[in-house]
Amino acid sequence: MAPDTNSIAGYTIFREGDYGSAEAAAVIPRDIPHPLDQLSIVEIHAAAKLIREMAAPKTPKFNCITLREPPKLQYAAYRQGRGSRPDRRAFAIIIMQDDSGQVAEVIVNLTQGKIEEWKLVKDVMPTLTLEDLDLMERISRKDPRVIEACRGLGITDMSKVFIDGWAIGVDERWGLERRLQQGLAYYRNHELDNQYAHPLDFTVVADTEREEVLSVDIRYVNGERTAIPLAEHHYLPHFIMSFQVNGNELSWAGYKMHIGFNYREGIVLSDVRMHDPYEGRHRPLFNRISVAEMVVPYGCPEVSHHKKHAFDLGEYGSGYMTNSLKLGCDCKGAIHYMDAVLCTGKGDPAVIKNAICIHEEDNGLLYKHTDCRDGTGVSARDRKLIISQIITAANYEYGFYHTFTLDGTYKLEVKLTGMLNTYCMHPSEQASVNPYGTIVAPTIIAQNHQHLFSLRIDPEVDGRNNTVVQNDAVESVEALGSAENPYGNGFYCQKTPLRTALEGATVYRHETGRTWDIINPSRLNPICKKPVGYKIVNNSCPSLLAKTNSVVWKRAAFARKSLWVLPYRDYELYPAGDYVCQSTGEDNHPHNPTIQDWANRNENIENTDIVCYIQFGLTHFPRTEDFPIMPVEPRNPALWVPPSSLCVDDKSRNAFPQTCCSSGELKDNPKL
Amino acid sequence: MAPDTNSIAGYTIFREGDYGSAEAAAVIPRDIPHPLDQLSIVEIHAAAKLIREMAAPKTPKFNCITLREPPKLQYAAYRQGRGSRPDRRAFAIIIMQDDSGQVAEVIVNLTQGKIEEWKLVKDVMPTLTLEDLDLMERISRKDPRVIEACRGLGITDMSKVFIDGWAIGVDERWGLERRLQQGLAYYRNHELDNQYAHPLDFTVVADTEREEVLSVDIRYVNGERTAIPLAEHHYLPHFIMSFQVNGNELSWAGYKMHIGFNYREGIVLSDVRMHDPYEGRHRPLFNRISVAEMVVPYGCPEVSHHKKHAFDLGEYGSGYMTNSLKLGCDCKGAIHYMDAVLCTGKGDPAVIKNAICIHEEDNGLLYKHTDCRDGTGVSARDRKLIISQIITAANYEYGFYHTFTLDGTYKLEVKLTGMLNTYCMHPSEQASVNPYGTIVAPTIIAQNHQHLFSLRIDPEVDGRNNTVVQNDAVESVEALGSAENPYGNGFYCQKTPLRTALEGATVYRHETGRTWDIINPSRLNPICKKPVGYKIVNNSCPSLLAKTNSVVWKRAAFARKSLWVLPYRDYELYPAGDYVCQSTGEDNHPHNPTIQDWANRNENIENTDIVCYIQFGLTHFPRTEDFPIMPVEPRNPALWVPPSSLCVDDKSRNAFPQTCCSSGELKDNPKL
Repeated sequence: MAPDTNSIAGYTIFREGDYGSAEAAAVIPRDIPHPLDQLSIVEIHAAAKLIREMAAPKTPKFNCITLREPPKLQYAAYRQGRGSRPDRRAFAIIIMQDDSGQVAEVIVNLTQGKIEEWKLVKDVMPTLTLEDLDLMERISRKDPRVIEACRGLGITDMSKVFIDGWAIGVDERWGLERRLQQGLAYYRNHELDNQYAHPLDFTVVADTEREEVLSVDIRYVNGERTAIPLAEHHYLPHFIMSFQVNGNELSWAGYKMHIGFNYREGIVLSDVRMHDPYEGRHRPLFNRISVAEMVVPYGCPEVSHHKKHAFDLGEYGSGYMTNSLKLGCDCKGAIHYMDAVLCTGKGDPAVIKNAICIHEEDNGLLYKHTDCRDGTGVSARDRKLIISQIITAANYEYGFYHTFTLDGTYKLEVKLTGMLNTYCMHPSEQASVNPYGTIVAPTIIAQNHQHLFSLRIDPEVDGRNNTVVQNDAVESVEALGSAENPYGNGFYCQKTPLRTALEGATVYRHETGRTWDIINPSRLNPICKKPVGYKIVNNSCPSLLAKTNSVVWKRAAFARKSLWVLPYRDYELYPAGDYVCQSTGEDNHPHNPTIQDWANRNENIENTDIVCYIQFGLTHFPRTEDFPIMPVEPRNPALWVPPSSLCVDDKSRNAFPQTCCSSGELKDNPKL
Repeated sequence: MAPDTNSIAGYTIFREGDYGSAEAAAVIPRDIPHPLDQLSIVEIHAAAKLIREMAAPKTPKFNCITLREPPKLQYAAYRQGRGSRPDRRAFAIIIMQDDSGQVAEVIVNLTQGKIEEWKLVKDVMPTLTLEDLDLMERISRKDPRVIEACRGLGITDMSKVFIDGWAIGVDERWGLERRLQQGLAYYRNHELDNQYAHPLDFTVVADTEREEVLSVDIRYVNGERTAIPLAEHHYLPHFIMSFQVNGNELSWAGYKMHIGFNYREGIVLSDVRMHDPYEGRHRPLFNRISVAEMVVPYGCPEVSHHKKHAFDLGEYGSGYMTNSLKLGCDCKGAIHYMDAVLCTGKGDPAVIKNAICIHEEDNGLLYKHTDCRDGTGVSARDRKLIISQIITAANYEYGFYHTFTLDGTYKLEVKLTGMLNTYCMHPSEQASVNPYGTIVAPTIIAQNHQHLFSLRIDPEVDGRNNTVVQNDAVESVEALGSAENPYGNGFYCQKTPLRTALEGATVYRHETGRTWDIINPSRLNPICKKPVGYKIVNNSCPSLLAKTNSVVWKRAAFARKSLWVLPYRDYELYPAGDYVCQSTGEDNHPHNPTIQDWANRNENIENTDIVCYIQFGLTHFPRTEDFPIMPVEPRNPALWVPPSSLCVDDKSRNAFPQTCCSSGELKDNPKL
């Protein structure tokens, strides 16, 4: 007998005794099972048979039959060779198919072939299985109240109505008297249509056990029904892959940008833009991106160590310290390298071969959806383009990976590796009582330190004049039980535009999951009626732990805030000053202003040409395992996601052709 | 003339006019440069020549010669075809090689071959170049005070002394009168030795311009010097790669674990352990890992939507909803699949083919270090092992990726994709004033919602009895200017053991970069004298935004905290209760306790068998671009890093042979 492959999408079902087929042979284990192996198909049959015999003449519905794992200590004893092999046991939850609807938990000892426990459970509702959920659509389509609710929207062909079964949470009308589920209703005009483009204005409540519709809850607005949204929005993939380099200009998957390099910032990305196939033009995203500064304050207060707070970019230069990269070691795959051109003290040019690595990688799933009815679906792989350099700053190595993905995200990832800065201990010094470092080897201490980076972004989101809006996720101000928030579940995104440079100097807030949108207030998305924008996501931004007014606090003004937003000025680039070596960081230095001075001008930053400095990094309490060489510590400082709409009209929602491909047309009302 | 390749490690230097060589030809661009291209070697020569002529008879030292980018509006006009091509300009910082040590900024117009600006800059210190840093070791080795300082430690061969040049921050002894750097001192006995294993107890201060040692600052402890740490700690790579599967037991790169699967949690990892080659045994890490629950509360307070807060695991089962995976779509590379065995309501077994995907991937750099003296270095690539499943929960897809890397990290990544839950709008409803959702297409709204997951970890760090210690990065309590913290830079890690289950119910704190260590208090690391442990890093844990006492707040007790730590009990698994469907979540339910009930017992969790529930997820304010299909939103909830020492003795620091490979022996004092 062939296995039944049709009744649950994605499942291959085996009837009892059906072990002769190739399909069964492939899934029956030949060895003695490991105590933690899932139940085999033979074991499930055996457990179900014993339970059915015990339940007779009643019929049980199996909510689950799963491995009953051995108790921890029993298994541990077996694993350590101190105890015998635990018996194989199955755990089942069953629902009686009679008026009682009793739920029971059953433990079956499979090794001994007997039921060990049969416990009735009251006032609970087991998991909804796919079989349970499957009934919702089936019974709804036949139900007169559902048919009537559809007719009210002009739908007469019930085969085009799709009902997603959902757990219901709590519904006071029935409480636990019935085993309930709710059905969310959609319309789908033809096989390739997308039901989520056509939600309907009613929900269905059903009894899962009696397979009975209990209620059809229609929402009336001013006494009226809500028409079906009829435009089609499909999700078929099409891709553009691989990159082209023309001089130092790069094209990849609809992106274009220029790759520059200098002694101080290393890689500079300019003119970052994306192609909009519907408008037939490149829409600007960023005017310029660079890592503009960093500081590494050490936390040991003993004198001489307080001077260790390297500003690796301002004091040495990220370009100067760049490594020449090697295929297979630093980079893998099909690489395009660019050289760096610097100069010596004599004024001679000096070239670092292969200073910049450009390559493309698979990035896992881009999107996926499976229709749980028939198991059909769509999925596409993501690709990422990575532009990277690695620098050596004495003992430390930093890898900077500027990354773009097909969904329009720009992300900078910094990888920290190399060697810890170490110091020696006098025999009188007790490792275990020194809180300022970790003993990594006998008589060697590695001190606490932070790595704080500043990413400079000069945005140009669909034009030069942008505004930064601060987003905080907050619960509704309306009280639980009020008419506006009867069940207390309301929450929304509180949006606060940053208006002046001092308002623009702001910190991350975990409690509200704070993010920031760089918006273009003069370009509205016609769908959601909100300005186009680009989101800053950055929750890897530790506070500067040195005291206010300490040497490093003064010198590293930039590290006092997670974000600074300033009006753009030509050549205002380096937040710790143009000259960082030996600078004191005092305010109002006549030749060497810092970001604090720029912010103190407190100029307008709303709907104008702005620049953002985004701080990120980590606090490193060294581990003994970080010596003698540190494994890479990745930090994803600023994740940029094209947010509440980088697009200017319905068609250009597809500015990222990889993300979605809609017909782009509002269809006339199709035949219902 | 061949280019000079020797004077700066990693640089190939070109003398003026030296354009005939193959090396030069390879780096001279043939086309007209893009306005943002870095300067070519020809342009650098031209700029340096003009500056030298202007400075004569004085000699300038070039701190940098770099592209002077065109002013933004000028470049924008050119880019848009509204203006002429900007002139090519160089920007240089020079230091005069005379007693004045004057610093000047020079702008050279390369298109017109003339100097446009020459500005003296006072009270600043330019970047330290590699050439500047290079002198520190050279002059220190010859300096009588340094030689004397070394002799005091028994060192007579100065070629074995290595001095890393560092920026000095601020040194009040000289302020800005001198261009300073500090040298950090190390000893290296032979070419393959690691200097950071032998730090010395003095630092050197030097004048960069006059190439003169100004001070050798020796630290005396009780009037004594500190001996050189002499043990060798190398960092040569050796790898173990690829995985073996025996039944459902997996071995990979020193890891071993069992892979189970059930209808509710999907993938279950048990007996996760790592091989310690020095102790010749597998050291336990985790007894059991699973994703035990999740909830998706929607934030629209209108009635009927308040019932949308699916507990996809407890209400449907992660195993039941699992997709059958396809090579090339869901997974790439050499895959080992495992099937899932479930059951139908009739009690028949049902198999999902290829439910679990196991594969190995390159993971970028594992570690790297380059010696800045000669450009030699070491680097190794990381690998990761990924055990994954993808589930479909009606409209949403979730990918669960359990990931292990060579440095001992376990990380769970969840990828969210699929379709938004949508609802229809009545014409009277204004999209732009509804804060509870986003219009994704005409008359279609997608509501705000959260995805909150609970990762259940049953740890077994080097044994069954573990304790969780809370880590907060805090500044020193000693005041700035006090003897204990004169420069205010002191900071450390405040460690608070969680002692009872109610203390163990705790939240993430951004201000202190809070993490948690799972330690084994009875196994001390003999190097750092602290207990072995494993760190929990989780800053992706949004607060539950529903009101206190609301329906979902009651039902999803687990989502009220970032971390719960509880004593282990057999079969206490599901934090929202064993039966989640229609549960109210009230405390003290007789048959269906939740994690809040377990915590309310307030039992001891110190140095006992414990279980951790780690909550993570995201708050989703839908974007228009999320329709009609959402690009993947990755969430790295819990990053586990083996922290202040998962090891029990000096040798077993190498429990992760991929991370480091020390000789493991304390050497006798080598010849000095």
